Amino acid sequence: MHVNADDFFKAAELDKPRNTKDSKLPGLNTLGISLARIDYAPLGENPPHTHPRATEILTVLEGTLYVGFVTSNPNNTLFAKILHKGDVFVFPEGLIHFQFNPVHDKPAVALAALSSQNPGVITIANAVFGSKPPISDDILAKAFQVEKGTIDWLQAQFWESNHY
Amino acid sequence: MHVNADDFFKAAELDKPRNTKDSKLPGLNTLGISLARIDYAPLGENPPHTHPRATEILTVLEGTLYVGFVTSNPNNTLFAKILHKGDVFVFPEGLIHFQFNPVHDKPAVALAALSSQNPGVITIANAVFGSKPPISDDILAKAFQVEKGTIDWLQAQFWESNHY
Amino acid sequence: MHVNADDFFKAAELDKPRNTKDSKLPGLNTLGISLARIDYAPLGENPPHTHPRATEILTVLEGTLYVGFVTSNPNNTLFAKILHKGDVFVFPEGLIHFQFNPVHDKPAVALAALSSQNPGVITIANAVFGSKPPISDDILAKAFQVEKGTIDWLQAQFWESNHY
Amino acid sequence: MHVNADDFFKAAELDKPRNTKDSKLPGLNTLGISLARIDYAPLGENPPHTHPRATEILTVLEGTLYVGFVTSNPNNTLFAKILHKGDVFVFPEGLIHFQFNPVHDKPAVALAALSSQNPGVITIANAVFGSKPPISDDILAKAFQVEKGTIDWLQAQFWESNHY
Amino acid sequence: MHVNADDFFKAAELDKPRNTKDSKLPGLNTLGISLARIDYAPLGENPPHTHPRATEILTVLEGTLYVGFVTSNPNNTLFAKILHKGDVFVFPEGLIHFQFNPVHDKPAVALAALSSQNPGVITIANAVFGSKPPISDDILAKAFQVEKGTIDWLQAQFWESNHY
Amino acid sequence: MHVNADDFFKAAELDKPRNTKDSKLPGLNTLGISLARIDYAPLGENPPHTHPRATEILTVLEGTLYVGFVTSNPNNTLFAKILHKGDVFVFPEGLIHFQFNPVHDKPAVALAALSSQNPGVITIANAVFGSKPPISDDILAKAFQVEKGTIDWLQAQFWESNHY
Repeated sequence: MHVNADDFFKAAELDKPRNTKDSKLPGLNTLGISLARIDYAPLGENPPHTHPRATEILTVLEGTLYVGFVTSNPNNTLFAKILHKGDVFVFPEGLIHFQFNPVHDKPAVALAALSSQNPGVITIANAVFGSKPPISDDILAKAFQVEKGTIDWLQAQFWESNHY
Repeated sequence: MHVNADDFFKAAELDKPRNTKDSKLPGLNTLGISLARIDYAPLGENPPHTHPRATEILTVLEGTLYVGFVTSNPNNTLFAKILHKGDVFVFPEGLIHFQFNPVHDKPAVALAALSSQNPGVITIANAVFGSKPPISDDILAKAFQVEKGTIDWLQAQFWESNHY
Repeated sequence: MHVNADDFFKAAELDKPRNTKDSKLPGLNTLGISLARIDYAPLGENPPHTHPRATEILTVLEGTLYVGFVTSNPNNTLFAKILHKGDVFVFPEGLIHFQFNPVHDKPAVALAALSSQNPGVITIANAVFGSKPPISDDILAKAFQVEKGTIDWLQAQFWESNHY
Repeated sequence: MHVNADDFFKAAELDKPRNTKDSKLPGLNTLGISLARIDYAPLGENPPHTHPRATEILTVLEGTLYVGFVTSNPNNTLFAKILHKGDVFVFPEGLIHFQFNPVHDKPAVALAALSSQNPGVITIANAVFGSKPPISDDILAKAFQVEKGTIDWLQAQFWESNHY
Repeated sequence: MHVNADDFFKAAELDKPRNTKDSKLPGLNTLGISLARIDYAPLGENPPHTHPRATEILTVLEGTLYVGFVTSNPNNTLFAKILHKGDVFVFPEGLIHFQFNPVHDKPAVALAALSSQNPGVITIANAVFGSKPPISDDILAKAFQVEKGTIDWLQAQFWESNHY
Repeated sequence: MHVNADDFFKAAELDKPRNTKDSKLPGLNTLGISLARIDYAPLGENPPHTHPRATEILTVLEGTLYVGFVTSNPNNTLFAKILHKGDVFVFPEGLIHFQFNPVHDKPAVALAALSSQNPGVITIANAVFGSKPPISDDILAKAFQVEKGTIDWLQAQFWESNHY
């Protein structure tokens, strides 16, 4: 096998505009670690999600981020914080968490290190309201304590977004 | 230490009416396993939730259950099934899943075996819309692709249910 | 890969006569879990055995079972219990255990969940007295504190049962 | 804590007569390893047993040993070998194994290294026929395919040996 | 226990002068992760060392670093790279590695994430030439293929540095 | 697969002259263990090295050995001991350790058992002063607190030994 130093390396390229939302690092697949660069547009966000098989360490490389996670039952406490360049935050394995760029005129960039080479991602809104086929609105109406009409409306957003 | 056979045993007591929703088994705390009996009222449900640190095996002891889980990104496929007495279903670690008793006049009883002595439970609706303090409605409106008013309405349900 | 809900599902089929002694569940081979349905004839048993790589959780689906396990040296304490429908019992990893249907006119059915996809089974009598080639009767006579003639008799039972 | 080189050291003392059967090494309890010296009288044995939580590496320091293990179901194959001074043999985790000194006029000494600091030992004969309380002779007669009288005789050996 | 968001947070404080060489993050001791900020003076270095129980992910927060690690026998290949702000490099568990600030007039700052809450650090020069008591110069002269006088000279450097 | 008892066996062959320095045991590659016989010439040594992924148990089969390891920062304490035939010593995972035969007219033989099937070996002198390409002498001079000329001399030894 041809291995070189670049297999252990991820360039930041902070000076280049980016369209892709995140980019996985190749070459770490036997080390039990994943790395991803995440770019946030002004007022952009990485919506509430979980990694079923990894703890995440996030380092802010540029800009400002408002981040948080919610603890499991029964407390469901939100731990949240404003982060600046160079700050670091940890999201424990399996908990629901998010990042949000609260600045309206500057992008942000962060590096996420995950404690598994196969961490998985579950975006909560998409899994609950956008699954294929959809979860019965009877079940979701009871779970979210609202009318079925509200659930149908929420599911319709994901249906549409999947069809345009 | 005084240990006896009852430390490895869980009586079903299927003939007794139950008020409690589930009951943990004592005595398994060094074996990497948890057990819980779950009682479902007619049309009752165990709403969408995850266990951040365990795979779950569910066995139906009485009645009928409609169960399912949703896979992680990017597919978010729903795998669902109707289960009868004695049937078994597996929910992989960290994935969002639910159980629902679709029968309007009979309760159901199931046994859940979890592959950790500390599996954790995150009820999705409560963690996302009922956290203390609440997650900003800016973040949730964008995540769920709806107006902030809809998010405020969803959050209000949990606020009220926590205060009555 | 084509995966569907049936890969996570095991039908009980409690209403069907069964000849096979147990049946493994397909589709769990990346989840660290095995499931097996075990059918017991009246006065039938699952003789003393160990799983070298798994803890077992047994749930009685139909009938009655007398179950037990023996702790390791130096105590060799027997923990045993009568189980009825819906009852659950745990056998810790690597310990010798058994199940026996003490009812002379009714079968029993149980579900065994094992904490490994490759738990292994060692039936004690077969491994000790029925190995191929046989263990020297000098060694076994000393171990079991009996005459070599008794050992030869025990070994002969397995020799014969392997040749009819 | 006062730690010194002797906490990582086990003297062989091959020139000293030994009464004790084996002696655990202190000081390894955070390294996931156990060591035991085993002394075998002429024609002495370490009877069939398992370690529920460890693989074992045996090195012969003095004398000759006949050793073996039996594989799990369905084959129950005996793998056995004569070992001389300096020879090494491996017993896989959880399998039934034994060592026997086949020489009538010389002792043997071996070193057993186990891949756990808490490997456990189950001596098969003692666990099956000498448990307290005893396993029902109905169950054992069926398992060993012999008359209950034979089982009672086997159990009596252990009963007596536990009371003198 | 009183836990808050700061237990999961590490401020960069990139604008503040630092004297301490690195600073561990509190509050991660159940997550299997350690974090350390490392400050490098102009032409300063983190000399060749290993972490016996962790892989390391290094992110450059400010300045420039020349980093590398050497593979195990038989190849002993050096993988090295110049890193700039935002760049990331991975040092596999147990391998000898270093970081060096090659710029003579600017400090550098990096964040090290380690895959264990107790990774350990072995600085090679100190362990080999500065141990207490010293390793015999017979052994080291042969290992490093030099005269004992050279070894004595190397050991003297560490002796002196430990006594001023 | 054809497996037999020899796959679990390593002959000592203490009566045969050996040229090879150590010999790995085949057949253990699924058991999480490695074994190696090590032969030491009179005044020969196994120079300071680490195993990045294993704890080692060393048993002296013939002769005498002076062995030791150095703890991690900040203490760098040397734990060392003279071992005779049958003695055992443990080297914890990732720590720098060595063995030396202090007898000028007799060889020694030892058995090393390692707690991984892929333990890795890093010979310190070779990795630090003999890597390909070499580590910058600026970095090593600072690390070892000596002139660059001393480092160049040390590196030259390995350069030459790799070219004759």
